[in-house]
Amino acid sequence: MTKIKDIGEQGLLERLQRFCPPEIIGDDAAVLETVPGQSLVVTTDVLVDGVHFSNLTTSPEDAGWRAAAANLSDLAAMGASPLGITVGLGLPGELNVSWVERLYQGMTECLEKYNTSIVGGDIVRSPITTLAITAFGQVNPSQIIRRSAAVVGDAIIVTGVHGASHAGLELLLHSELGQDLKNTERTALIHAHQRPQPRLDVLPIIWKILTPNSCRDAINRVSTPNYRLPIAGMDSSDGLADAIIQICRASGVGAVLERRQIPVPKTFNHWLPEEQALKYALYGGEDFELVLCLPQEPALALVQHLGEGAAIVGKITPGSTVLLHDEQKKFPDQVLSLSQGFQHFGQ
Amino acid sequence: MTKIKDIGEQGLLERLQRFCPPEIIGDDAAVLETVPGQSLVVTTDVLVDGVHFSNLTTSPEDAGWRAAAANLSDLAAMGASPLGITVGLGLPGELNVSWVERLYQGMTECLEKYNTSIVGGDIVRSPITTLAITAFGQVNPSQIIRRSAAVVGDAIIVTGVHGASHAGLELLLHSELGQDLKNTERTALIHAHQRPQPRLDVLPIIWKILTPNSCRDAINRVSTPNYRLPIAGMDSSDGLADAIIQICRASGVGAVLERRQIPVPKTFNHWLPEEQALKYALYGGEDFELVLCLPQEPALALVQHLGEGAAIVGKITPGSTVLLHDEQKKFPDQVLSLSQGFQHFGQ
Repeated sequence: MTKIKDIGEQGLLERLQRFCPPEIIGDDAAVLETVPGQSLVVTTDVLVDGVHFSNLTTSPEDAGWRAAAANLSDLAAMGASPLGITVGLGLPGELNVSWVERLYQGMTECLEKYNTSIVGGDIVRSPITTLAITAFGQVNPSQIIRRSAAVVGDAIIVTGVHGASHAGLELLLHSELGQDLKNTERTALIHAHQRPQPRLDVLPIIWKILTPNSCRDAINRVSTPNYRLPIAGMDSSDGLADAIIQICRASGVGAVLERRQIPVPKTFNHWLPEEQALKYALYGGEDFELVLCLPQEPALALVQHLGEGAAIVGKITPGSTVLLHDEQKKFPDQVLSLSQGFQHFGQ
Repeated sequence: MTKIKDIGEQGLLERLQRFCPPEIIGDDAAVLETVPGQSLVVTTDVLVDGVHFSNLTTSPEDAGWRAAAANLSDLAAMGASPLGITVGLGLPGELNVSWVERLYQGMTECLEKYNTSIVGGDIVRSPITTLAITAFGQVNPSQIIRRSAAVVGDAIIVTGVHGASHAGLELLLHSELGQDLKNTERTALIHAHQRPQPRLDVLPIIWKILTPNSCRDAINRVSTPNYRLPIAGMDSSDGLADAIIQICRASGVGAVLERRQIPVPKTFNHWLPEEQALKYALYGGEDFELVLCLPQEPALALVQHLGEGAAIVGKITPGSTVLLHDEQKKFPDQVLSLSQGFQHFGQ
């Protein structure tokens, strides 16, 4: 196997250029066209071998896909369409060139699906494989989705099921788990972990329902029953509980979640005890769905448009407490907190 | 000394927020306003402890300044004004918190000088200190400076002296060097290494001389004697020889450099042998000046406006050879190449 030290950083750059649009190569920086009147959105992630990815559970293609998907999900969470990403790589000389090519293969597969690409980068020698991605997007300023815009009475929506990614990781780490799952069920959960889908597809559906010409003055923050902009939201990359708590903190509100409304993969129903399924959904993380807060009427319309997996999981309340409630009264109300969340997994 | 593992990544983030504008904190991504009609310019660099910076020669403040300056220099080399940078950090738990605060102090000192700021970032645990910076800028599309736009007959300009940064590094690494230098001379060279100045100040001067309303159709690439846009250029971060060779390659042209026109720090005249001074200037790198190619008349005007250090160092020729020429005929013509350049320093 050819190693990076055999071909050098220049040789590696030449091999990786096929993953980038030809017009962006060869200057000190990349030039991107933007649509006039749109704001620029930027987000960045650093991933370190052994901390954020591992050859044990993740092929280089999947590591690449996941890294690209996580950044695109941050753009989606702001309401922004992607313009491109830059990729900074720190690589040991002993690493196989094919590992890097496969990483780029995975990144570009994800980016192409969302009509975007790698527009620049830097490759340097490092004792440990390190991947730094910065993603750029653009958004109409009236359509920026912020954590701080939730209003009492808003419905809380999730755009899909939660817990699948964590379940997939557990199956990869512990081969003794899930022996009674069908192969297709097992594969679907693992796929959810390895190939998460950033929910950029949700944005045009939101804007179809919440047409800008019917929006109210965002400054007034008047809670009319529908068509209010901006809506609040973030992605659930660090877990559904984390997303709701962060939105409530930023907006100065509380929330009540209906325990039985939180959508989990159907597989969970015959595989995991109810309480464990809920913990996976609330604290598992990396599902990369959107958690959105908007008035009840458009919330219902949005859930109908999004179809299976999407659900209204609760509502925004006065105060600052995030409560987990059971409409069937089988469980007492439980206050969610971030530290409690992590304790569930003994972290 | 408080270590990162003592306060955790969340604690560190809280301490570093004072270096960022308050309005950008707390969402999945940062939102930046751009001027309508301008193109977005992005560039990224990864820096690894022991490879790109070292506590032996560089304080954390200087490492921060240099990292920010290198990225702003890439923006200047494209003709772009900065909008902001994102900072991705991989940090060992054993690292002192004060090291990171001092790194941010140096970065923000540099950014504030150029009216820009840190707009986002990510901090993760890593066995080795790693710094990934992405800078964003904007440029009027008619004013993009590209490597590929040099035309036969263009004058080649440097915006300042070359070799100072490398000399400063040598003085830091080898205390026995430069014993006969005055303290002020020594300090000036070391300062050139530790606090390089990205030449964003050159851009308004260029556009004052080359007013857009007198520009010719860039597509035609007609070489009128002056006021042609686009002009060609890049920064000299990897050395002056490298910059000229890269511009010639990208433009499909050659160049003749006049050996005695290449500006070096005055200190070199009584400290270094002529040949060594030239090698520092051509191959030293990290001077972060701009190397620009434009017609003779505006080139002269630009050099006059830029003042001390700026000079016309040669001209663009047909063919593909980059020649070092001696008008006094003391040295034979010499062909410059990148490999030859690195061999000069035994790399």
